[in-house]
Amino acid sequence: MENLKNFVKKFIGVDIGGMTIKGVIINHLGEVLSRNDIVTGAENGGDAMCSNIVTLINGMLSETGVLKSEIAGVGIGCPGLIDSKNGTVVFAGNLGLDYYPLAQKVSDKVGLPVKLTNDANAAALGEAKFGAGKKYTDSILVTLGTGVGGGIVIDGNLFEGGNSAGTEIGHTVIVADGVQCTCGRKGCFECYSSASALMRKTREEMKNNASSAMWNTYTPETVSGKTPFEYAETDETARGIVDWYVKYLACGITNLVNVFRPQVVMLGGGVSEQGEKLTEPVQKLVAREIFAGMSFAPVKVVKATLGSKAGAFGAAALFM
Amino acid sequence: MENLKNFVKKFIGVDIGGMTIKGVIINHLGEVLSRNDIVTGAENGGDAMCSNIVTLINGMLSETGVLKSEIAGVGIGCPGLIDSKNGTVVFAGNLGLDYYPLAQKVSDKVGLPVKLTNDANAAALGEAKFGAGKKYTDSILVTLGTGVGGGIVIDGNLFEGGNSAGTEIGHTVIVADGVQCTCGRKGCFECYSSASALMRKTREEMKNNASSAMWNTYTPETVSGKTPFEYAETDETARGIVDWYVKYLACGITNLVNVFRPQVVMLGGGVSEQGEKLTEPVQKLVAREIFAGMSFAPVKVVKATLGSKAGAFGAAALFM
Repeated sequence: MENLKNFVKKFIGVDIGGMTIKGVIINHLGEVLSRNDIVTGAENGGDAMCSNIVTLINGMLSETGVLKSEIAGVGIGCPGLIDSKNGTVVFAGNLGLDYYPLAQKVSDKVGLPVKLTNDANAAALGEAKFGAGKKYTDSILVTLGTGVGGGIVIDGNLFEGGNSAGTEIGHTVIVADGVQCTCGRKGCFECYSSASALMRKTREEMKNNASSAMWNTYTPETVSGKTPFEYAETDETARGIVDWYVKYLACGITNLVNVFRPQVVMLGGGVSEQGEKLTEPVQKLVAREIFAGMSFAPVKVVKATLGSKAGAFGAAALFM
Repeated sequence: MENLKNFVKKFIGVDIGGMTIKGVIINHLGEVLSRNDIVTGAENGGDAMCSNIVTLINGMLSETGVLKSEIAGVGIGCPGLIDSKNGTVVFAGNLGLDYYPLAQKVSDKVGLPVKLTNDANAAALGEAKFGAGKKYTDSILVTLGTGVGGGIVIDGNLFEGGNSAGTEIGHTVIVADGVQCTCGRKGCFECYSSASALMRKTREEMKNNASSAMWNTYTPETVSGKTPFEYAETDETARGIVDWYVKYLACGITNLVNVFRPQVVMLGGGVSEQGEKLTEPVQKLVAREIFAGMSFAPVKVVKATLGSKAGAFGAAALFM
């Protein structure tokens, strides 16, 4: 009966970014009925951002002719510390929000039920339901961007931690007394496995290795997360940087694997664009380091497939 | 209805140790109706150990006059890698068991349903239901013994990880390239926060500090996990060891807290006997390092209260 209901219902997903809010209307198969973006506008306050969300939703509804009665609900992924039970943005520094009752505000304006979760959690649910995790019940998304984010799906359900304040996987220390993290700790996973960390290391190594072939096309000022991968086959310095990066990434992933033992770990974010150049060596190290070996409960390391769509899809899936 | 059934039912818990198997019959409040021990006897094979479990159970039943029809089931906590869904001991090196169908074997002999979980998971469930965690829905038990073990309870339910092969919290790296661990990795939480690690550090520091007051009563050969705590107020070397230990313990705990955000972390095992000498400084560091501070979703660090009874109690609770 519940499944039948979901079969005919449609789902709205909203993914709030610093600059842009993405929206989708999808069906239970993840097929897109409508997609649109709008400026976030949080600099004008929470209510202004809220109005933009409502404009986005109403626009998608009128474009497609989907009726509100056909919509199961509106899921929203939002950066920051989220109280998902109460639909409140507890704290989102980038958006300037503080205990802002976002779900209720949007619900009042669009007349639909609204659920709220952290944006990284939403992306993890999106990948789990419709992306690289769709064949599995237990998955972890690790996004390698400015920081290391991600989320955890257990038995098909999003795990948000107690009070929906957990799954800060980037802020688990893998090098005690290591690199200073923005969170206040030292040696966090994110300080070694983010795209920013990879670029920091690349700059350092270029400065230390004047003969590196990376200097042919880059300066420390122009490097990106792609630079060391581009030169890894021909330049020893670049190869060393990739090995360094893979080692710490595999370390942080194995930590998660030894605790959650998912069937799959999906890599997202900018660095994951390297595909098998990244997933293969990480998979090898995880296989070597996983507790009690891979024979009983194996774990795959793969590239996430939904890219920047994952968040809005996963937000919509909050009502599935 | 389910609650009513549990109200009149009794629960058998069995905790398998290397030397001794502990058994209890408890009611839904955790009140003990019977308690007994028997030799493990795994050196004579799985079936011999199984017979001992059956003897233990039948002995407790006949001692109390409790009928099998009053028993909801038999829960067993067993060391090693456990397939709890199938009731199989996948691998338990200390017991010499390999894909041994323990739950089925015991069930066939006692004529009661049997559930199996890892012994550390059982202890975590025991503490959560009847010990230091009973006021909370989300808790983590961290046992500080020969290794670092423990388990995780989410929303009142035991979390075992995918294929019940997770929650190996002692085998998460907190010092990349650090001390060699028995699991094959380097720098595991267990290599810094177990009683063994504390004793290793104490021996090292005594050797490096010939004037330490610890030499008054101990040699590196006679130290225990209590030694540095005993001298911490009067001896600088001992104080330094305790600070070292607290720092790494808080690091590993904060990692778990940032992912699971439980309401309480319970410390068990030998080192936890230090009580507030341990929990207070650990609590302070966790409060300082926890993601986004303690105001929204605070976490308490406390001493576990059930001691060696936790495993059998938690095993019994598998049927609650």
